[in-house]
Amino acid sequence: MDPAAMNEFELIERLTAGLSTNRHLVVGPGDDCAVLDLGLADHWLLFKTDAVVEGVHFRRDSPPTMVGRKALARCLSDVAAMAGTPVSVLVTVGLPIGFDPEYVMALYAGLDGLARSYEVSVAGGETTVNPERVIVSVALLGTVAKERCLLRSGARPGDALFVTGELGGSIAGRHLEFEPRLREARWLADTFGPHAMIDLSDGLAGDLRQILRRSGVGAELNAPSIPITRAARSAARLNTAAKLPLVAALTDGEDYELLFSVNSNDAVPLLDGWKARFPDLRLSCIGKVTAEPGLRLRDPNGIRELGEHAYTHFEQC
Amino acid sequence: MDPAAMNEFELIERLTAGLSTNRHLVVGPGDDCAVLDLGLADHWLLFKTDAVVEGVHFRRDSPPTMVGRKALARCLSDVAAMAGTPVSVLVTVGLPIGFDPEYVMALYAGLDGLARSYEVSVAGGETTVNPERVIVSVALLGTVAKERCLLRSGARPGDALFVTGELGGSIAGRHLEFEPRLREARWLADTFGPHAMIDLSDGLAGDLRQILRRSGVGAELNAPSIPITRAARSAARLNTAAKLPLVAALTDGEDYELLFSVNSNDAVPLLDGWKARFPDLRLSCIGKVTAEPGLRLRDPNGIRELGEHAYTHFEQC
Repeated sequence: MDPAAMNEFELIERLTAGLSTNRHLVVGPGDDCAVLDLGLADHWLLFKTDAVVEGVHFRRDSPPTMVGRKALARCLSDVAAMAGTPVSVLVTVGLPIGFDPEYVMALYAGLDGLARSYEVSVAGGETTVNPERVIVSVALLGTVAKERCLLRSGARPGDALFVTGELGGSIAGRHLEFEPRLREARWLADTFGPHAMIDLSDGLAGDLRQILRRSGVGAELNAPSIPITRAARSAARLNTAAKLPLVAALTDGEDYELLFSVNSNDAVPLLDGWKARFPDLRLSCIGKVTAEPGLRLRDPNGIRELGEHAYTHFEQC
Repeated sequence: MDPAAMNEFELIERLTAGLSTNRHLVVGPGDDCAVLDLGLADHWLLFKTDAVVEGVHFRRDSPPTMVGRKALARCLSDVAAMAGTPVSVLVTVGLPIGFDPEYVMALYAGLDGLARSYEVSVAGGETTVNPERVIVSVALLGTVAKERCLLRSGARPGDALFVTGELGGSIAGRHLEFEPRLREARWLADTFGPHAMIDLSDGLAGDLRQILRRSGVGAELNAPSIPITRAARSAARLNTAAKLPLVAALTDGEDYELLFSVNSNDAVPLLDGWKARFPDLRLSCIGKVTAEPGLRLRDPNGIRELGEHAYTHFEQC
């Protein structure tokens, strides 16, 4: 493949193929976290890094406490997607020379506050120079019971697909304030044992494709069941150039909700159990896993294939 | 303290004071790695992150394989300083949009090659946008036998101070090519049980101060015993504006050698054992730990105090 023609996804695929491995590595590149076996009797380790960059994931005028909080929350969301428990975090902050120390202290305070609320230790911090903009890179260590660990690769034909919360329009504010779904994910793993799970960071359609690809299956989504945020609806109402609400729910990034598949026989008891346990958080059955590959969307007008680049067409509907 | 008046060291001290902790955290901020107890019978986990930035730690025209190698080698050197064994690494690369994928692939190849030679798994990789320059952030996980773990805080008055290799002038090339002292450190921990150890990243004088501060002791260095690289000597010969070789050895960063203290009774057997085991790597006894605080340098003209800002004076000698 000509490297210059690669997109980011292809580049990562190429970069992570055939990397060094050893007897401790259970799951390497390609899931929400890496999984390591260090010899604990019943648990594996989860290992994750993630970076947020000024001008890409936050703005210079975003409140620094929220920037620090977000940097950690993104990693916590990845640990949630494996049904794990976060343990310890390290923080690297890149800063222009002479940057206001008050900003960095507020950033640390925001990260530390979220760490505290999940009993995660902040085991160290480092600052380095990044002359043009603030960058925050976080490394997180967690644990997961071996028999509870949820990968992207376990979805089976016939499974029901569920999503927590509501999707789309995160840019209006939720991308800085979201709550990682740690408790919900552990409850799911303990009760109904989802077959596959992922956290939504790149948009429902894109992240669902990750599950489908790694599980060797397809899916059919039921358009009217996809939960859409008020933010995505009002953006479309106020601005005719904005995405249609359904398209926003399918393609906006940074939802940080859980997408998972369970045995379809569990769908009704799951909805009942969820309502009793998490009455304030919506849970929606949005479709099903199919043996036939590809991603399809069913709406009152019929079924259409959602190709990787189907969304332009959508907006013309 | 007025934040605007803080230097980086004071800022890190302030940022890392009173951070969130939990029962798993054995050693938090302030040593070469964080140390975690996850319930393994005889071992602790070591956890470290480190970032290298274009224009600060390498140049745009530095060979990308060497940049990737260096990013990992720095973290390996920190694991060495605790007498640990590295297990798994995650890589985050920040890149300008449209950056040449060949560069990134070469960077990964360099990192992966070094990982392979120490049986470290590369458990995942991520690319993100950093519009103006390349940045590589590495997170490393390792293990260490509990009774072998070497901290900065154990130096005792009367200890002999040793350093591996030769110091100064790393900028001439060694900063991209150094070999982390993993085998040497484990051998030391297994045989002579150093009381304190650190890897030299900020210069002998500065890093020794870290040991002294955390151990509550002082030290006296013997100037003629400090091993100086050929690179530092020729820099001084070729350029009268360059640092004196001894000053380079005391203050240049990025040596990535080990500095440690052992019981003075072990000094001679250690030197003999070392020569038999590592005949190609110099080991030098450079001074002793003292109960009296402060850092002093002895040379044929007498003893002088090495204050934090003593080096300007030096250069005028």
